[in-house]
Formats: sequence, C-alpha cells, structure tokens
Amino acid sequence: MARKRQIKLAAYLIGSGMHFTSWRHPQSNPVASIDVKALQKLAQIAEKGKFDLAFIADSLAINHESHPHILNRFDPVVLITALAAATEKIGLAATASTTYSEPYVLARQFASVDHISGGRAGWNVVTTADATGETALNFSREKHWEHDHRYERAEEFIDVVQGLWDSWEDDAFIYDKESGQFYHPEKVHELRYEGEYFQVKGPLNIARSRQGQPVIIQAGASVPGQRLAARTAEVVFTHWDDIEEAKQFYQKLKSQLKEFDREEDEFHILHGISPIVGETEEEAVRKYNELQQLVDPYESLRFVSGYMGNVDFSKYTLDTPARKVEFPKVNSIQSQFNEMKKIIDQENLKVGDLYTRFFGAAKRDGFIGTPVQVADEIEKWFTAKAADGFMIQFPLLPRDLDEFVTHVVPILQERGLFRLDYEGDTLREHLGLQVPENRFVSKEKQFSTF
Amino acid sequence: MARKRQIKLAAYLIGSGMHFTSWRHPQSNPVASIDVKALQKLAQIAEKGKFDLAFIADSLAINHESHPHILNRFDPVVLITALAAATEKIGLAATASTTYSEPYVLARQFASVDHISGGRAGWNVVTTADATGETALNFSREKHWEHDHRYERAEEFIDVVQGLWDSWEDDAFIYDKESGQFYHPEKVHELRYEGEYFQVKGPLNIARSRQGQPVIIQAGASVPGQRLAARTAEVVFTHWDDIEEAKQFYQKLKSQLKEFDREEDEFHILHGISPIVGETEEEAVRKYNELQQLVDPYESLRFVSGYMGNVDFSKYTLDTPARKVEFPKVNSIQSQFNEMKKIIDQENLKVGDLYTRFFGAAKRDGFIGTPVQVADEIEKWFTAKAADGFMIQFPLLPRDLDEFVTHVVPILQERGLFRLDYEGDTLREHLGLQVPENRFVSKEKQFSTF
Repeated sequence: MARKRQIKLAAYLIGSGMHFTSWRHPQSNPVASIDVKALQKLAQIAEKGKFDLAFIADSLAINHESHPHILNRFDPVVLITALAAATEKIGLAATASTTYSEPYVLARQFASVDHISGGRAGWNVVTTADATGETALNFSREKHWEHDHRYERAEEFIDVVQGLWDSWEDDAFIYDKESGQFYHPEKVHELRYEGEYFQVKGPLNIARSRQGQPVIIQAGASVPGQRLAARTAEVVFTHWDDIEEAKQFYQKLKSQLKEFDREEDEFHILHGISPIVGETEEEAVRKYNELQQLVDPYESLRFVSGYMGNVDFSKYTLDTPARKVEFPKVNSIQSQFNEMKKIIDQENLKVGDLYTRFFGAAKRDGFIGTPVQVADEIEKWFTAKAADGFMIQFPLLPRDLDEFVTHVVPILQERGLFRLDYEGDTLREHLGLQVPENRFVSKEKQFSTF
Repeated sequence: MARKRQIKLAAYLIGSGMHFTSWRHPQSNPVASIDVKALQKLAQIAEKGKFDLAFIADSLAINHESHPHILNRFDPVVLITALAAATEKIGLAATASTTYSEPYVLARQFASVDHISGGRAGWNVVTTADATGETALNFSREKHWEHDHRYERAEEFIDVVQGLWDSWEDDAFIYDKESGQFYHPEKVHELRYEGEYFQVKGPLNIARSRQGQPVIIQAGASVPGQRLAARTAEVVFTHWDDIEEAKQFYQKLKSQLKEFDREEDEFHILHGISPIVGETEEEAVRKYNELQQLVDPYESLRFVSGYMGNVDFSKYTLDTPARKVEFPKVNSIQSQFNEMKKIIDQENLKVGDLYTRFFGAAKRDGFIGTPVQVADEIEKWFTAKAADGFMIQFPLLPRDLDEFVTHVVPILQERGLFRLDYEGDTLREHLGLQVPENRFVSKEKQFSTF
C-alpha cells in the first residue's frame, strides 16, 4: 500500500536567522553562528517539530558586504557532527563543494558523520557560487572555474564519492577471533575510477552506515544543474516567487527522472520559504516590518553588489531604474542571475528595490501571516505540486523556528499533511527513500573484486 | 615562579588496541574502531586519568596486511568532534596530512573543532607515510611525492594554516546592534600568502578560539622532519628503544629550537610506549605473551611487507637473516627505515624477528611489569630527559588504559610527577603553552590591513 504523500520539512540553520539584519533584532543572539550550544538548541527545536532535516549552508571565503554570519562560522561537516551529539532523530545535512574538495576526503568525512549520527547525514552538493572570485584565491587558484567546467567536475565527483561509499559490502566484516579473519576479502571492492577529472582507486577506509549512503541534496537550477540533480539528487532545494512557475519547474525537473530510471517519489523538491507568524496577520506583518526597518538601503546594496559580481552602485541613485545598471558577467549562480535580470525588466525595478525584491527572508509573501494562513499557503503549494516540501529559512532565529514548531506544525499534523512522530531513525527513513543497493553486490559480475 | 616540570601524557586511541591482534583477544571489542560510543568511553577514561590529550592517528588508504583497525575507521577530525561532545577537559588531537589536504579547509576544520571543544584541539601534522603508493592512487595522483618534496610543502602548508588562524583579532567582533556594526574592519587581516606550493589570500571565515590556535604535533624524525618540528611543533611524538639514544635525540632536537627563538619548555617530546601492568611482573608478562601468541608469524610478515614497501617475503624462511632481504627503496618514514636497517645488522635479526622487534605494542621492555615498575621506568625516562612525557599506545583497549589510569597514574601523582587534576580548560593550558600572539596584532606595522 502506497503511503499518503506527506510534506517534507528542512530547517535552514544560520546563526540568528536568514534575514540580513536579524542579528540587530532585540531578541537575537548575534554570536549564534559561532555558538555551538545555540546551534544545537536550534536543531533540537527542529527535532521537536519532527523536521526531516536540519540544513547547514556554506561559503569558502568571506564577503565583507554579505550576511555577517558568513564571516565567522563553523565548517559544516564539523558542525553537523556536533549537532548529531545533541539530537537523536533529525537528519543533518552539510554543504560541501565539488569544486574545492577531494572526493576521497569528502566521502570519508560524510560517511563518518553518517555512522556517528546513526544514519542521519546528508550532503548538499554545491559547485560553489563565487561571483567575486574570492574563493579561488583561498585555494591557490587564479580564478573560479567556469560554470560548465564546474558541473562536469561535479558529475564525476559525485560518481567517485558514491562509488567509494559502496567499497564494503554490508556483511564484509566478520571479526572471527578464532580463525583470525577480520573480514571477507571478496566483499571489499576497489572502485578504480578513471575519469577526466578524477582517478581514484579505493577502497574507502570506512564501511557503509545504517542508511547505506548519505542523502544527496542539490540546489542547482541551471540546465546542467537540473541534469545533475535528475541523475543524482534525492532532495532538491529551489525557490520561485510564483506558484505557477514553481509548478512548471517541478514538472520539468521530475520529467527528467525517467531518463535515469528513477521514480518521482525518490526525489523531493523543497521550496525555500521564510515564514513569520503572528496571532493576527497584522502582528505578523509588524514583525516582518520590524526586521525590514533594520536594513540600511546602502548597506543592502553592498550585499547585492557582492552577490552579483562587484557592481559599482556608487554610480546610481536608489531611484535609478535597475535595468540601467551595468552588471558584469558573473561566474556564479547562473540560472538565478538570468531570472533576476528578467524580473528587473518585467517589474521595472529601481536600484533601491533590488535587495528587498531578491534576497533571502526579505519578501512579503503568503508565508507571512497567522498560523492558519501560513499552513494554508504551505498546503496550497504542496497540493498543487509546486513543492514536495519546504526549506524553511527562518528570518529570525530561534524565534521564528520556535513559533513555527509551536503554531504551524500542529495544524499541518491535524490536516494529515505532516508526520505526528518520526517513523524511523535515519534520514532516508524520514524521506521515504530506500537504502541504495550496493553497486558491487547488485551488479557483481561487472566489477572486478580482489 | 617556574612550575615544576611535570610529565605529559597522551592516550593513543585506536579501536581495540595498538597490538596487531588485540581484536582477537577474548576481552576485546573488535568493532571498536567504528563504534563512536566505545571511542568516547576511551576518551572519558583518559580524562579520568587527567591525560593531557587523546590522540587519533590516520591513514588515507587501506592496506590489507596492516592493522585491521585501519580498514574501517572514522575521519579523525570528525571523530575528535564527537569526542569533544563526550568530554570536558582532555585535549583532542587529530592527524591530518599536508600532502593530501587543502590548507584553507584544514585550517577551518581544526579551528571549528577548537571552538566546539572550548580550545582543546591539536593537529598532528603528517606528510603521510605511504610505502606502497596506495594513497596517491586515491587522490588522482600517479605516485606519492618524494620525502623532501613533501616536507617543503609541509613547511608552507603549516605557515598558511597558522596564518589563516590569525585572520581575526580577538576583539574584532563587536556586534553593535545599535550602530549596525558587526565587526571592526581594521581587525580582520588578509594573509596574502605567496609561496611555491600555495597562494592563499584569506581571511579565514572563523575566529580564533580560547586557546588562540590548535596545538601543533609532529612525529617526523628525519633531518627535514626535525627542522620542521623545531620551527613549528609544540609536541613531538617519537620512539627509541634505548634510553641513551632517546636522550641524544632529545638534546639534538631541543638544541635546534634556539635558531627559531623558541624555549625548551614550549616544546614537549613524547616517547611512545606500550605498557601492560599486572599485580606481579609475571602476570604482566603473561598478559603480554597472551597477545603475542595470537600473532601468526606469516600474517605479521605481511604487515612488515606493507610497511616496508611490498617486500616479497615468500623468498625467505623465518630463519633467513634479515640482512639478506632485498628491501625496495621506500618513499615513506625515512629516518625510521634507516634505523631499522642498522638494527637488523647490529642485532643479526632473522626474518621471523622483524615484526616483534620493530612494530608497535609488541616489544617486551621495561614498560611491562607491576604498576610500580612501570611508574619507575616512566620516571627514569622522564628524569633523564629522554622524554617530557609519553604517547601511550595501549596494546589492548580499554583494558590497558583502564589499568594504567587506576594503578599507574596514582603512583605518578603521589611522586609529584603528574597533575592531581586539570588546572585549566584548554589543551594549551594542560601543556603549559602560551596562547600564541596574533601575528597581525604583534607586528601590526609590517602587514597590510584593509
């Protein structure tokens, strides 16, 4: 019997919140991005709310104009290991870059957290957005690689990592004290990967975990990004302002699964939202405005500049039509950048509108309202198949997470849209994903063993 | 007033123990190398014994002939993060390779654990010993780099990592909600490192921890290894069979500190020992023999082969004089390899003696006996300045750690040679090391700020 489709929820954990100036809010802990106890507390609240997973974003360089929380933060893999110690059920996803990592190290670190957490790890695969080129300069490279080059490398990188994760069959280790046999040599497999970017022999020096392999998460929405997701991702995180556009993207992305022999329910599309709830709609809007009023328009333009490739906004006033801005060609989040330029034209945006219109946790939309209104909006997007679930980028933490768990989750539960409790222990179980077969077991004849 | 010199103790934590066949012992947990609760328990016992630090070794490839515990183990950085969650005081040192890592990632991960543990992290710097060349093949390289090349790169690597660790002055972050100023821009510093191997701009996206920087640990005993240690290490882990040789090495290494303006008490030399205690000397020897009898002589030769560069021992009998063996030129732990060849000649060893004579936790020495005998031997080495402390590679875990903490530590404490309790909270405090000055603060004028 097929289970009823249920909403998947991910909590985006970032210091004092996703809103650019959340740290200035009277209720915020501005040190939260580097306070492991504060971050563990957030994961515990999300677990109390039965969230599928907690999600940790990343950057590999600082950007003076960006969200202050990216200046001083933990390495995501180290952080989710610390979160694992403070939680029992919730999935834990960390961002790591295929452009700036080694697959053997990455495979091993994620496998390690996956064991330590009892099968709760997820890897958010990124190729790194680096509009200003700062990341490359931290990695002894002259410049950030081009978009297509990054995606080609990412395709190989994921194949190597997943191949290494299958190095040991589940019953390889026997620990026979009497005979002295620690493992079955025929149940350990060399990958012998020979690609253009990587040549990796293996085996990895760690076994598979309870969930087989960490869950693969992605956010790329460009054409190569969609293809990579359709082939390898199990969760995709995306964002569209408009429900109709979201539905189209949802269908387009899910229709690409067939080519890779994959089923639609093995692939969850999460829509990014930034809900704020109030007892009345007016109270929610007041809370929204309270955060918005902390944003200095010139400070926010520096953020936009860093994100869009070092635009020199000093040449323009806040009233200048944004279509007149000379945006440099950026080697960054391509699909999103093109979408923004389209909207700038369509909506005739001014320079002073750019931050509010485009950047996280700053838009006034249907997810700001009473608990019932927010639940209605969530149900609407979910039922319309604009999303299988939501990546919730809470504007102010822990407040907005706490209030969402207390007031919105119970409504979704009453409506039968969200779990009352965890049914399993692993991230795959929460997401209704199968433990992947070990490629060396299922296609044994095709691979050499030793 | 100078504090009385005290013994430093490090607990080498490895699955069921350092002895090659410890996993076959009736009391062992053969799964321990991949059992986070078992490893956390070991760290807790070491902390009960007031050890300065727990130490995690590493390898980046499996070797079928080696210690079974290297087949299936955690990434060390991830592991010490999990150990931090289960302990409060003990230092936590993880091995990571300068040959197979990126300095920005490594700096960040160690800084992250250092914050999360409250200033208890140490980095055991290795250039990776890889006599069989398997590691290179896991990292898209054709072969393992030559010894001198590895050490040149290590010199630069450490400079980059330590430079990145100083990116933020301790009072850089002010979090002024009123003015909107998150940090002082003049208190964050770009490294702008331009070396032969690395070009790294910085700054790192994480601040310094309570202890300023993680502690640097090394084990290289070759000429370039000694030089690197004298310049950068704060703890050195070494091993000599003979107390006179150990004293000579101790003096030789410490005498190199002057060149780098360093003091002898900023630099601790730990001697590797594998103690087994019994109520009587006979009982200790019986426990030692019990482990030795589990070693199959041919199996142990495969271990020797893997360690010494794929020697084909099938051409020899156990009685063949070892000097007749054709050892290949190895690109591995060079100083140790040369020392072994010298001893093979001097002691006229046979092939069947090699494992027992050279490899960890298998030698019958003065550290096997009653608690008083073991404490006497420790005091002798310490007082003679053959060592400042000991890296204790317990043959069988948790048994030998537990017994050492219960029976030997109290004797050392009674003699005033070892702390009764932790005086501080950080690894630097345990080791009597100063918080390093931030290079950008102390020499402000010499560096550009932005």
